[in-house]
Amino acid sequence: MADEPTPDEPAHDEPSHDEPSHDAPGPERSGNAVTRARRFLLSGSGWPYMLVPFIPIAIFLELNHAEAAIIFGAAAAGVVPTAALMGRATEELAHRSGPGIGGLLNVTFGNAPEMIIAIFALNAGLQEVVKASLIGSILGNILLVMGLAMLVGGLKKPFQTFNPTAASVQSSMLLLAAVALVMPTIFQLVSGGGLPEVGEERVDFGGDLETMSLIVAFILLGSYVAGLVFSLKSHRALFNPTSEAEEHVDEPWTIKTSVIVLACAGIAVGVMSEILVGSISEASETIGLSEFFVGLIVVAIVGNAAEHWVAIYFAAKDKMDLAVNISIGSSAQIALFVAPVLVLLSFVVGPNPMALVFNGFELGAVFLAILIAVHVTHDGESTWYEGLQLLAVYAVLGVVFFFA
Amino acid sequence: MADEPTPDEPAHDEPSHDEPSHDAPGPERSGNAVTRARRFLLSGSGWPYMLVPFIPIAIFLELNHAEAAIIFGAAAAGVVPTAALMGRATEELAHRSGPGIGGLLNVTFGNAPEMIIAIFALNAGLQEVVKASLIGSILGNILLVMGLAMLVGGLKKPFQTFNPTAASVQSSMLLLAAVALVMPTIFQLVSGGGLPEVGEERVDFGGDLETMSLIVAFILLGSYVAGLVFSLKSHRALFNPTSEAEEHVDEPWTIKTSVIVLACAGIAVGVMSEILVGSISEASETIGLSEFFVGLIVVAIVGNAAEHWVAIYFAAKDKMDLAVNISIGSSAQIALFVAPVLVLLSFVVGPNPMALVFNGFELGAVFLAILIAVHVTHDGESTWYEGLQLLAVYAVLGVVFFFA
Amino acid sequence: MADEPTPDEPAHDEPSHDEPSHDAPGPERSGNAVTRARRFLLSGSGWPYMLVPFIPIAIFLELNHAEAAIIFGAAAAGVVPTAALMGRATEELAHRSGPGIGGLLNVTFGNAPEMIIAIFALNAGLQEVVKASLIGSILGNILLVMGLAMLVGGLKKPFQTFNPTAASVQSSMLLLAAVALVMPTIFQLVSGGGLPEVGEERVDFGGDLETMSLIVAFILLGSYVAGLVFSLKSHRALFNPTSEAEEHVDEPWTIKTSVIVLACAGIAVGVMSEILVGSISEASETIGLSEFFVGLIVVAIVGNAAEHWVAIYFAAKDKMDLAVNISIGSSAQIALFVAPVLVLLSFVVGPNPMALVFNGFELGAVFLAILIAVHVTHDGESTWYEGLQLLAVYAVLGVVFFFA
Repeated sequence: MADEPTPDEPAHDEPSHDEPSHDAPGPERSGNAVTRARRFLLSGSGWPYMLVPFIPIAIFLELNHAEAAIIFGAAAAGVVPTAALMGRATEELAHRSGPGIGGLLNVTFGNAPEMIIAIFALNAGLQEVVKASLIGSILGNILLVMGLAMLVGGLKKPFQTFNPTAASVQSSMLLLAAVALVMPTIFQLVSGGGLPEVGEERVDFGGDLETMSLIVAFILLGSYVAGLVFSLKSHRALFNPTSEAEEHVDEPWTIKTSVIVLACAGIAVGVMSEILVGSISEASETIGLSEFFVGLIVVAIVGNAAEHWVAIYFAAKDKMDLAVNISIGSSAQIALFVAPVLVLLSFVVGPNPMALVFNGFELGAVFLAILIAVHVTHDGESTWYEGLQLLAVYAVLGVVFFFA
Repeated sequence: MADEPTPDEPAHDEPSHDEPSHDAPGPERSGNAVTRARRFLLSGSGWPYMLVPFIPIAIFLELNHAEAAIIFGAAAAGVVPTAALMGRATEELAHRSGPGIGGLLNVTFGNAPEMIIAIFALNAGLQEVVKASLIGSILGNILLVMGLAMLVGGLKKPFQTFNPTAASVQSSMLLLAAVALVMPTIFQLVSGGGLPEVGEERVDFGGDLETMSLIVAFILLGSYVAGLVFSLKSHRALFNPTSEAEEHVDEPWTIKTSVIVLACAGIAVGVMSEILVGSISEASETIGLSEFFVGLIVVAIVGNAAEHWVAIYFAAKDKMDLAVNISIGSSAQIALFVAPVLVLLSFVVGPNPMALVFNGFELGAVFLAILIAVHVTHDGESTWYEGLQLLAVYAVLGVVFFFA
Repeated sequence: MADEPTPDEPAHDEPSHDEPSHDAPGPERSGNAVTRARRFLLSGSGWPYMLVPFIPIAIFLELNHAEAAIIFGAAAAGVVPTAALMGRATEELAHRSGPGIGGLLNVTFGNAPEMIIAIFALNAGLQEVVKASLIGSILGNILLVMGLAMLVGGLKKPFQTFNPTAASVQSSMLLLAAVALVMPTIFQLVSGGGLPEVGEERVDFGGDLETMSLIVAFILLGSYVAGLVFSLKSHRALFNPTSEAEEHVDEPWTIKTSVIVLACAGIAVGVMSEILVGSISEASETIGLSEFFVGLIVVAIVGNAAEHWVAIYFAAKDKMDLAVNISIGSSAQIALFVAPVLVLLSFVVGPNPMALVFNGFELGAVFLAILIAVHVTHDGESTWYEGLQLLAVYAVLGVVFFFA
């Protein structure tokens, strides 16, 4: 969870045959800028930047009041490179600041794109979309990302291994999150109030549930901070199994560059999110998908696209520890950090506080997904078939959400 | 899942003291046919054939319109030897065809009796009985069969071991199935429609749920086929830990014999099933049990009787890998192969498509049973007490179903 | 589960530096009675006796009809030393009777205080309070006690280990209990009757559920007895990993002393319980907490206080096997022994039989807690962060119960 290095680093110290090694002396290294740029764009971490043109396109379409579905598509594509750039800048800054602060930065900014999107949606009063995209991010990370990672990695090697203890710590975070997500909903059910409908934008659950959600949010945040201490301090070794092997070969960015890039990327994510959120309702109507499906599947995939790619990239390199770390760790982070922060913010931003009450689909899906994540990671071993099963679970959920 | 050898084979290469070794030279081997037949009927795999007389008895009773409860009992007893014979013929055919096709045959025909019974019930419009017997087969395999196997095996040896990775693959199939069974039911609940009542014969859930069930059935079947590739091809070694030890000593059947026996046994199963299903409603009324209880407990036990015996037999021989393989594998097969095939067939056979919506008892029971199966198999070790606990869970479920 | 030695024993054979060794020759050993008493009261097992004065205080307040909240507080404090004394006397008696009978005594009287409190509540017709305190005891043992034990133990040592097989046996008992607790409630839901409300004192669920609860209670008790055979006979070694190390150094009590102390302590627990239960309704009103919260959190903590202390004490001494044994074992004992015995007793004591139907909070909480307990104990390893997570789950549940 703490460390999510961008995939270009390990590529350098493991010269592979399909792409020329960067630190080899001679012409490859001194190739002209165009060649290097092309190579970067086609490499593991570079492809998201090929979507950069969608940033101005989305802004242009928005200003000219184009059709909502097209704006939505362009903005969705535009989020990906800005999210990737934020990830890269965070990584560089983290590298400069030493492991302690670095880990903290990584963690804090790691889910920044999702959080920025969510804050815009919160401000627009789309609380049910926010909750759907939180659940969607957790599901996407556990099932889609980990599934693809295990499938891709497993096609090359019969059994891939990872540290089961580190995975277990993170999956127990998910179980804690499950309790925090399920119990307030049970409260709502037992009190005789129904769960939110799928079509609704926002529900006022009353003071008790708001206060309860606030306290539960603080407990989750406290547990999250303790988790940082655990993974960055007391049990560092568990989460950095290969840290010494990852040497930075490219010239690192200066702190100033990193901060400026981070700020610019953050603003760009914000602009794209504003456009994305503004077009959700109309776009989903045009495409014929429910707002719920769009929030749960589409927004979740877009907001996590860069991260997703990295996890699969590492799995293909047989660095399953990192891949599992990223997929389960990201989910745990959304459940224990992003969700409670959004609950706190909802007391300030938007029309009324957001209670941690989920609808039946979200609850069932996230609970079952967490159980399965706990199961497939408990033995520290994965195969392509386990990956495929995770994808099958994601597909089943997607089908049910489609009809919801 | 792939390999379910009949229990007579291992008996041959491990001469035991309570029955004379078959490959010993001299008079035992050349004993007259009556002695050999008697010995076979009392051996591990022979006892089901003692129930052969019930086949003509059931037909006779049916034709003479005897009381339903008596017909039901005779047909139930008559299913057992025909199912056993199908299993044997499949085994022989599989042995002839080499491991790849053999495994496929084994798997395809392994649950044929259950499927034949279910198709007759589907045709009679008894969809709720079909779903009950599917759930009942899963519960019976996980709890009753694995419970008895662990109990019987554990009485001889303090700890029995099996490959936890193989068990884990199959129990994750069960978790996938749990998602596929639970989510459409949540859809039905959230849409405001109630779950099916226990007493109902058939419920029309409308087009959305039928389409959803169809797509989910395809996903399950796809995952099942991938599972075959996994267990028969890419990770064969995992599922055939003792294959070299199992030598065929009896003269094997020819392919022609096998096919003819398979066809005849299949027809016999069909006839028995037709009689069985035809008498369920009236019989359950006479005995004072609900149709639900009969479908969930009685039909499930009868349809799996031969398989059950084999698993327990292997456990007693300390071949726990095979016993767990059969019990969890059979459940996984029912959930990922038989159930979706029946959903597909229901679009052709019977009055209206069968949606994957279960009642509260079935859902709660199958979900809890799967969780427990995952738990008891995760460490690759079993004791008699674990077996007893599985049986206690089955007993608790049985009591609750009785009152349902 | 079988062996819960009081914490003073191991202290003796491991001379520690912060308190003088008892078996050292010379003045420390022969120190005057006051010094020894003071040292005992401040030692691991002695502190509960500092609460002895609350016993007469509670009786005095009760007789003088003091305010209910004050009586409740005094009686709660008074239960602790009497429970501790019962534990000690049981331990002495067990030590005298050899491992077989000793284990049985330990187990039978180990949860005697909870059971005595519950019988008084049952007699007063407070069935919902009884069920709440049963669930509360299970939650308290799994989450609060095991959480504190893992946290305290983990602060001294990065990884603490325990026997995962022994823990697994006990956590599968909890899963069996989960089935027994969940299924009758599903029955009630499916039959169209609602679950009990949080504020209710007692609900009559009708004959079916009472009979069902009775049979389920017998199955649980049978499974519990089998568990005794397993842990005291067939697989003793699994549960007594350190038994040879625990030598009794103090002069042991005679059987006569033990029996008399046990009887007196039992009577004292009874008197305190009568006072405690009698003041619950009024006290909870005065303090502003619901009767439900008081039963679930306060009564559960008070009734298990002595046990709780012991588990944490052992964890701090890095005897994690014993700590996990006590916390999970106690929960299993409550679910498989105390709860069914109370169901049986309810057919004799109190206004009407108590059915095993729980409200939504209890069901959700106990089910999730059991899943988490299974997860954190499956690898035989614990860290301070796992402990903290268990405490966070307990806190989340506490918050939700507070608002219930």
